[in-house]
Amino acid sequence: MIGFESREAFSAALADLPEANKVAQAAAQLRQEDLTKPLGSLGRLEDIAIFMASWQGRERPVLERIRAAVFAGNHGVAARGVSAYPPEVTAQMVANFAAGGAAINALADACGAELVIVPIELERPTADFVEEPAMSEEDCLAALNAGASVVEEGLDLLFVGEMGIGNTTPAAALCAQVCNGTAAEWVGAGTGLDMDGIAHKQSVVAQALALHGAHCTDAFETLRRLGGREIAAMAGAILAARIKRIPVLLDGYIVCASIAPLVVDQPRFAAHCLAAHCSMEAAHARLLDWLGLAPLLQLGMRLGEGTGAAVATQLVRSAIAAHNGMATFAEAKVAGVA
Amino acid sequence: MIGFESREAFSAALADLPEANKVAQAAAQLRQEDLTKPLGSLGRLEDIAIFMASWQGRERPVLERIRAAVFAGNHGVAARGVSAYPPEVTAQMVANFAAGGAAINALADACGAELVIVPIELERPTADFVEEPAMSEEDCLAALNAGASVVEEGLDLLFVGEMGIGNTTPAAALCAQVCNGTAAEWVGAGTGLDMDGIAHKQSVVAQALALHGAHCTDAFETLRRLGGREIAAMAGAILAARIKRIPVLLDGYIVCASIAPLVVDQPRFAAHCLAAHCSMEAAHARLLDWLGLAPLLQLGMRLGEGTGAAVATQLVRSAIAAHNGMATFAEAKVAGVA
Repeated sequence: MIGFESREAFSAALADLPEANKVAQAAAQLRQEDLTKPLGSLGRLEDIAIFMASWQGRERPVLERIRAAVFAGNHGVAARGVSAYPPEVTAQMVANFAAGGAAINALADACGAELVIVPIELERPTADFVEEPAMSEEDCLAALNAGASVVEEGLDLLFVGEMGIGNTTPAAALCAQVCNGTAAEWVGAGTGLDMDGIAHKQSVVAQALALHGAHCTDAFETLRRLGGREIAAMAGAILAARIKRIPVLLDGYIVCASIAPLVVDQPRFAAHCLAAHCSMEAAHARLLDWLGLAPLLQLGMRLGEGTGAAVATQLVRSAIAAHNGMATFAEAKVAGVA
Repeated sequence: MIGFESREAFSAALADLPEANKVAQAAAQLRQEDLTKPLGSLGRLEDIAIFMASWQGRERPVLERIRAAVFAGNHGVAARGVSAYPPEVTAQMVANFAAGGAAINALADACGAELVIVPIELERPTADFVEEPAMSEEDCLAALNAGASVVEEGLDLLFVGEMGIGNTTPAAALCAQVCNGTAAEWVGAGTGLDMDGIAHKQSVVAQALALHGAHCTDAFETLRRLGGREIAAMAGAILAARIKRIPVLLDGYIVCASIAPLVVDQPRFAAHCLAAHCSMEAAHARLLDWLGLAPLLQLGMRLGEGTGAAVATQLVRSAIAAHNGMATFAEAKVAGVA
């Protein structure tokens, strides 16, 4: 289990990222060139297989242990009316996850992922970041470690999701801070705000940026001031996966926003990640573009919980099935291109 | 088993298409409104679940019996050098399918489909349609019935695929004939032609259109003159599925081209179909637009064999898993929108 003993340990880990296995990557590329299909004809499935090979460090990747982790947190800023739903829904949905009734339960099961639900101090929302940093140093570190703790040795794939009423507001603040742009460019409707609600949310984000912007000197400090517990946990999990060279499927806007501060500090941070989908939250497309990631799916989803990543996991399964299961031209005695 | 006794029987079946079950559709819609998520937040997964419910005729659709059928045929026009591969590859790939080594074997297995391979008189290519109709009436009817014969009672989903060196040429001819537009607009690189090859293929299609265009008075005649055995078989299978109200996932350009003549005669013909993906064959996007279908996936695939539909089957599985498995707001005691 990877844990960060201090903010310095977190920063040191972020500064020393392992890279993919180039030998396995080259072997997988060669295998693709030899399978009984015109090279490139399976499109992004070929890229996915090679990506998985490169991070798992084997020519033929596997998909036996998939960990799905959903983190939940509550946000002081929710009291400012930045969501269409009341904050109690966070705990209600966590109970729904525990009972197996949410979308992510059905979708994690369908894609063969082991689902863990990690509520983080729901009864203790973060501070209102319009007035002070969302978290103390201790709280932020604890959240990062709550995330890292789900990343067990031997996982073949990780994806994370979130539940936290109001959390598109800190997500927008994180993006506006680290990717530049105005609050208006990063604030969207979340789970159903009207135009007045969006304008109010923009103003809340702008106030937070005015208070904290100059102090966001590194990933840890940015997450601490503008993030939230479930957001820091996702960043911690995705960093822990990188340290173990476990490939990650990124879900929606909030998941991607959680790693934006890490990408600013380390431009290759997202190299072990694929973008599962592009959500309907308008800023997600902008954020994926900033991350340099092309989404695998565009299905008009906007639920969170890791649901888009669960659906995209099926594409990874297909990619690996073709990569590992197909015959080569020589094995099948099929003529190549004329 | 559905069979067409004559061309008139085929035309009569096409003229009398059953529609979806509106009661099941409404029940599925109501269920979606009651599940523990903001309505619409699962995007197209919600639409897929309701679509499947409407054609299966039950509020909660199932995905237990999936039939994948790959039809193979050879084309007289291939002798004109319209493909980058030699015609022998059709039979070689059928042998590869039989041995389990092709992409569709791996992908059908990954999505839980039962795969059947139907080579149709590979040793007897269709006639060169630049000089005469591709098929006799008997041959066309036999091909339609070879397709219909794979559509057994009780299937939950059907998808079809094809293998036939040179078959993007008849596909382009069918599209140019029934969807209008020039040969140039419907001819693409197929499995790897260069610019000169594409120009030659355009001229071949233009010659076929000049010879047959005025005689293509209905779906049967169009398929007979400009199609091919595997193309007519796919049309027959998809019509048989409609008669049995079995939903269909359409694969790539050639599959979609096979039904274009049926859609011209019956504009609602594709109502029981979802478009699995948009392939890299440029005309496929144009054809999907003409069909009024939005593809579920855009992964840069261009292999055929039903591979895109096999991958998209996983999305259908996810959609049904969420639809059937999630709790309602009342069951989960979660508060609705504020």
